[in-house]
Amino acid sequence: MTDAAISAPAASPSFGGVDDELRRMLAERTARATAYGASFVALWEAAADTLLGGKMLRPRLLLAAYDALTEAPDAAAARASVVRIAAAVEVLHFAFLLHDDVIDGDLQRRGRPNLIGTLLNQRAGLRTHDDAHWARTNALLLGDVLLSDAHQILAREDLPHEQRVRLLDLLDHTVTESVAGEQLDVGLADRILPADLTTVLDMTRLKTATYTFEMPLRAAAIRAGRTAATELAVAELGRHLGIAFQLQDDLLSTFGRPDEHGKDAYSDLREGKETAAIAYARMTSAWPAIEAHFGSAHLTAAEGDLLRSHLTGCGAEAFVQSLIDDQLRACVTLLADPDAGIPAALHPVISDILTTIEGRRA
Amino acid sequence: MTDAAISAPAASPSFGGVDDELRRMLAERTARATAYGASFVALWEAAADTLLGGKMLRPRLLLAAYDALTEAPDAAAARASVVRIAAAVEVLHFAFLLHDDVIDGDLQRRGRPNLIGTLLNQRAGLRTHDDAHWARTNALLLGDVLLSDAHQILAREDLPHEQRVRLLDLLDHTVTESVAGEQLDVGLADRILPADLTTVLDMTRLKTATYTFEMPLRAAAIRAGRTAATELAVAELGRHLGIAFQLQDDLLSTFGRPDEHGKDAYSDLREGKETAAIAYARMTSAWPAIEAHFGSAHLTAAEGDLLRSHLTGCGAEAFVQSLIDDQLRACVTLLADPDAGIPAALHPVISDILTTIEGRRA
Repeated sequence: MTDAAISAPAASPSFGGVDDELRRMLAERTARATAYGASFVALWEAAADTLLGGKMLRPRLLLAAYDALTEAPDAAAARASVVRIAAAVEVLHFAFLLHDDVIDGDLQRRGRPNLIGTLLNQRAGLRTHDDAHWARTNALLLGDVLLSDAHQILAREDLPHEQRVRLLDLLDHTVTESVAGEQLDVGLADRILPADLTTVLDMTRLKTATYTFEMPLRAAAIRAGRTAATELAVAELGRHLGIAFQLQDDLLSTFGRPDEHGKDAYSDLREGKETAAIAYARMTSAWPAIEAHFGSAHLTAAEGDLLRSHLTGCGAEAFVQSLIDDQLRACVTLLADPDAGIPAALHPVISDILTTIEGRRA
Repeated sequence: MTDAAISAPAASPSFGGVDDELRRMLAERTARATAYGASFVALWEAAADTLLGGKMLRPRLLLAAYDALTEAPDAAAARASVVRIAAAVEVLHFAFLLHDDVIDGDLQRRGRPNLIGTLLNQRAGLRTHDDAHWARTNALLLGDVLLSDAHQILAREDLPHEQRVRLLDLLDHTVTESVAGEQLDVGLADRILPADLTTVLDMTRLKTATYTFEMPLRAAAIRAGRTAATELAVAELGRHLGIAFQLQDDLLSTFGRPDEHGKDAYSDLREGKETAAIAYARMTSAWPAIEAHFGSAHLTAAEGDLLRSHLTGCGAEAFVQSLIDDQLRACVTLLADPDAGIPAALHPVISDILTTIEGRRA
């Protein structure tokens, strides 16, 4: 998904300290790597190049929500702990991206070499099968260490046992859902699973909504000392936001202007990505015309434009937009209902996100 | 490595409760998986088939060492916690095996289908590229969840902060070394790194000795309330044992009788595995004759026998045996030196392992 610039109160040049925390962690990891040879050091150096410099959507959301929810906003020790947890969410995100790229065999992300591409570019001369295997393996192994690190950061916080267990439950839930979502995504891509709308929407929710919106909001609620009931309420909000955001992201990939949204025009259509729009189009009479070019590695711009107009013409674009509207409306309803249990202090943070998602229309 | 039947005082039909703990965890995981579709359930069912039934070398060592080191041997709550930690070590082992098989593209382990092979066998008809990708991806994702679970189990124990941090430090160290060792192994296999003896011995130590011997002994020392000095002393012992065990394992692969040791004859030679014997042979005049067949996928029995006799003739077998003897002697020296800090209570456990390794001679 695209980490579009969602405005969040805690945003600052160093993202509320998360950037510094990530730099500190990576420097420590790189220093420790020297005990294991030059290749291990090189892996951590390449990791730093690709991990830093992101938009930090998830940590920023976590910090903004925490600052809104906490009743001790200036307790420095507590906030430093929350910054570490926010960094852990970014580390988890990077671990997922790495394993996603290993699974998909991708060498780029957002038009730049990803870690695999970076490592491959470091090999001199013609790239061999062994070079490609080595680069992919490094990404898999780095993902393993970062997945471990996400757990280590949370587990090391000196918190009351009950609060630590709640954070660990949340991380466990998040990893399980993200992995289950990735399995659905690959099952769709490998044509193991039927490309129906239910499966595509489950995949959307599990693969990204959970860890991108639900987890930061719940972690903030836990660390702000809120009840389990509040945690569940913000979890529901996070799921709606996450599904809306990811569906909007998929729409932009197909219908947006690449110069505005930084998406590679037609790349989803070229890859044959199973999105909600495609699942809808499969059920219409426009499908044979779409199927003729969908997933073609050599899709031309003219063919891409044709696919887009078919997807609009058959109602797929409008259908996905209606799904997004449903999710956004569900958020507004939750915010307006005093019995839903969303703390009023969180309203401005959520309203900012809603405005941003609505403003990203294609 | 082969988990040969190392005798350990805690050994019992259910491995001191570890087997039951693993069954309980897997049943819980499988029940939770139903929320994410039939493929996710199928993955956990296949995982149970391959995860259970192992020899439990690592958990058994941990429990035997704990029972020897603890001064409250009958405190039921403490021992239940140690059983969970022992189960976590087995879960970590399985996560490493899964990612190792993904990296190597293997479909078998010890002559039986591994998880990837099992999932592939479930696909009907001719296996396609997509089927193979799907099976491999499932193994990668299951490894991610199990790696998370190993951390979760340790992090959830309700221990004093200092003791939990020691366990987390140990797990962090173990994951880092195992990943660094796997990187070296792949770098050797992909011919990215020079196949010299130093690199091969580093790989041997990091990839398996750390998590197979050092980690169980250290975890036992921590949970038995022993000092950091004792933990470091048993760590050194674990490294020597682990290197000796893995070198012995490699020797058995090449020179042992398959019917006795359950190793596939010539498989290491056929795969071109960079072992200490091969690294030594490279430095001798026998190398050109060995190189002619080493790593040949179609190695015949006659060629395999020829390679073995070259490796013996050039002194490689005797050299590796001398390395093993060095490691075993270092263990004996540590046990005999009262200043080395190995608690006397641990001596019988270590002596049993030494006897077993010596008894496994090819």
